Amino acid sequence: MFTQDMLRSIARATPSKIVLLVLDGLGGLPDPKTGKTELETANLPNLDRLARQGVCGLSVPVGPGITPGSAPGHTALFGYDPLTLNIGRGVLEAVGIDFPIEKEDVLVRGNFCTIDKDGNITDRRAGRISTELNAGLCPLLETTIQGVRVLTAPVREYRFVIAFRGTELSPEVTESDPQVTGVPPEPVKALTPEANKMARIANQFAEIAKSVLKDKHPANMVLMRGFSRRPELPGMNEIYRLKPAVIATYPMYRGLARLVGMDVLPTGSTFEDEVVTLKKHWEEYDFFFVHVKKLDAAGEDGDFARKVQAVEEVDKSIPGITNLKPDVIVVTGDHSTPALLKAHSWHPVPTLLYSRYCRFDAVTEFTESACLRGGLGIFPASQLMSLMMANALKLAKYGA
Amino acid sequence: MFTQDMLRSIARATPSKIVLLVLDGLGGLPDPKTGKTELETANLPNLDRLARQGVCGLSVPVGPGITPGSAPGHTALFGYDPLTLNIGRGVLEAVGIDFPIEKEDVLVRGNFCTIDKDGNITDRRAGRISTELNAGLCPLLETTIQGVRVLTAPVREYRFVIAFRGTELSPEVTESDPQVTGVPPEPVKALTPEANKMARIANQFAEIAKSVLKDKHPANMVLMRGFSRRPELPGMNEIYRLKPAVIATYPMYRGLARLVGMDVLPTGSTFEDEVVTLKKHWEEYDFFFVHVKKLDAAGEDGDFARKVQAVEEVDKSIPGITNLKPDVIVVTGDHSTPALLKAHSWHPVPTLLYSRYCRFDAVTEFTESACLRGGLGIFPASQLMSLMMANALKLAKYGA
Repeated sequence: MFTQDMLRSIARATPSKIVLLVLDGLGGLPDPKTGKTELETANLPNLDRLARQGVCGLSVPVGPGITPGSAPGHTALFGYDPLTLNIGRGVLEAVGIDFPIEKEDVLVRGNFCTIDKDGNITDRRAGRISTELNAGLCPLLETTIQGVRVLTAPVREYRFVIAFRGTELSPEVTESDPQVTGVPPEPVKALTPEANKMARIANQFAEIAKSVLKDKHPANMVLMRGFSRRPELPGMNEIYRLKPAVIATYPMYRGLARLVGMDVLPTGSTFEDEVVTLKKHWEEYDFFFVHVKKLDAAGEDGDFARKVQAVEEVDKSIPGITNLKPDVIVVTGDHSTPALLKAHSWHPVPTLLYSRYCRFDAVTEFTESACLRGGLGIFPASQLMSLMMANALKLAKYGA
Repeated sequence: MFTQDMLRSIARATPSKIVLLVLDGLGGLPDPKTGKTELETANLPNLDRLARQGVCGLSVPVGPGITPGSAPGHTALFGYDPLTLNIGRGVLEAVGIDFPIEKEDVLVRGNFCTIDKDGNITDRRAGRISTELNAGLCPLLETTIQGVRVLTAPVREYRFVIAFRGTELSPEVTESDPQVTGVPPEPVKALTPEANKMARIANQFAEIAKSVLKDKHPANMVLMRGFSRRPELPGMNEIYRLKPAVIATYPMYRGLARLVGMDVLPTGSTFEDEVVTLKKHWEEYDFFFVHVKKLDAAGEDGDFARKVQAVEEVDKSIPGITNLKPDVIVVTGDHSTPALLKAHSWHPVPTLLYSRYCRFDAVTEFTESACLRGGLGIFPASQLMSLMMANALKLAKYGA
């Protein structure tokens, strides 16, 4: 596979515009009753027309059989190798709430939990306390330990973010969450000599938290997972010479996009709102990542009909995008989320690419089975960026 | 490509069961008279039904145009990279006869040969002496040279195994078989300084063999090929958290399976017997590698009709497997063996995967041309394990 360094050497800035529309959890599986997938069931006149005019295929987010989380699913679509680029849980949680990460921060996903009088965990999620309660507890945990500032921020229910901000910290430590109940939280241990300080500070923080929270049953202790630092990435502007922006209703996707150098455009909560935002900022950028969450949410809930409805809703607003006459439109997903599985899955993702210069194929509808016969074949998702760039005539010839 | 280390981090033990049915030499080429391949000629109602309900494709054992031996063909199916995992001829010969290999053994494939009074080779296979004669000669060659034990074991006709068992031996030496007649056996030469001792011992062994065998015409000398040591592999239990077993009528395949940590289940000589064995041990394991040799043997003999008959025989007993309700069934081969070529070939191998969660495709018969249009596409055989694991819901999500 060619590298980002190679792409960097041939990418050129042009006025042409690319829209990458990611329908989270797009691909599905047949309903056992009808033998049809969500896409095969839905009525999608606009997406079908794009499929007819464009070139289709099935993208493989990480590898055959591998079910991706949101981070590898998206970084692959942005052209980064999802196997070498590792975004930790702490970082992902922090970007998901627009937490102002600093370069040296070690970020941690915190869980409020319940311990009994012997210090053993009885509930790893503290009875799923309310987000409001969480927000009231977080400030109590902020402190400074040996010059290291400890910042916190609530996420949702029992989940919060911890940022350790100081010098000589390393994320190479074990987690304190034992993943089971009936035992006490585990001490954090350094995995490398450089991480000794981090382990010491984390354990002192655990002691402080225990003391601060002792009367706050059921949230009378914290667990720490996913110690990580923001990865140092070349931005999409640097690699592709693009001016990229993200339009997403969920903070996590905005955060992921910001990690690769996208500007965040404020938007409303529906796809229709997102298309309005796109139109508003059309002249300012040449690459738009538009994220739609609803399909994935319906798939995770196992709600086949709601997933069908969600993609039909998207279809209705597609003309709002095509009317802007982007040079390249891609519609894909970061992974499949079949309602049948109620979870992310490993199945390849239906993908269409439309441009004036795509070599269109015989595909006439936007479904899993039709995309299988498409001109893009079955391909790694991380190769989609170079295809988009090429179709926007943003890649110079390679080699003499 | 993702690595076994990555799979190891997401594999989880579950009660679901996988059957990997390998029809050795499965793929073929059209009979010039009919224009149909062996599979297209055969009547395969049960395999066709599985193809219809499952997802199909063509697997590439090692790489485009590369004809695999049995070892890379199988290790790829077990999820190991056939290009970095090198199983030497000596090791393969030894595992093929259940020879009790020890970790430090340097294993060699020996040939009895005929030399004339000047020491030149007149027959590299000693007139294909009987296995019985071979078995009588082997013990005469056992000896100890400078503290290195030399063990032997007959294989078949003129072929036998030599194990050099001692310290400071290295397999990095040249072979003594010149591959032509009319010249004497070549001296074994060290390819690295560490292999000097091995070369010296091997040459002394050749002298001893010449003297011991001098009155045993036509088997009056030995040739040595494929010096090798058992590779150190992580087992399938370690990588995939599986409890795997092999059901095979030929010792070589049992040996290959044992190298990757499978238990060997004793079985009879027909596929029907193998299915009985499968049923008997069904509760004890969660991964069964079932090997069928007959198709390959017929292909190697250039016997198109017998290969057709062999796969029809397999088809008849397929319900014995499906009735056990495995969560995942894969039917594939380790390579193609077209009767037209009378040999292993490089052609991609028809492959079907059935599970409740496979995204079935439009394929309705189990043939080369139908599989080409299948949902798995044309894919590296070494990726089949992660697909089987995913479809058995034995892989956790990758990444946050």
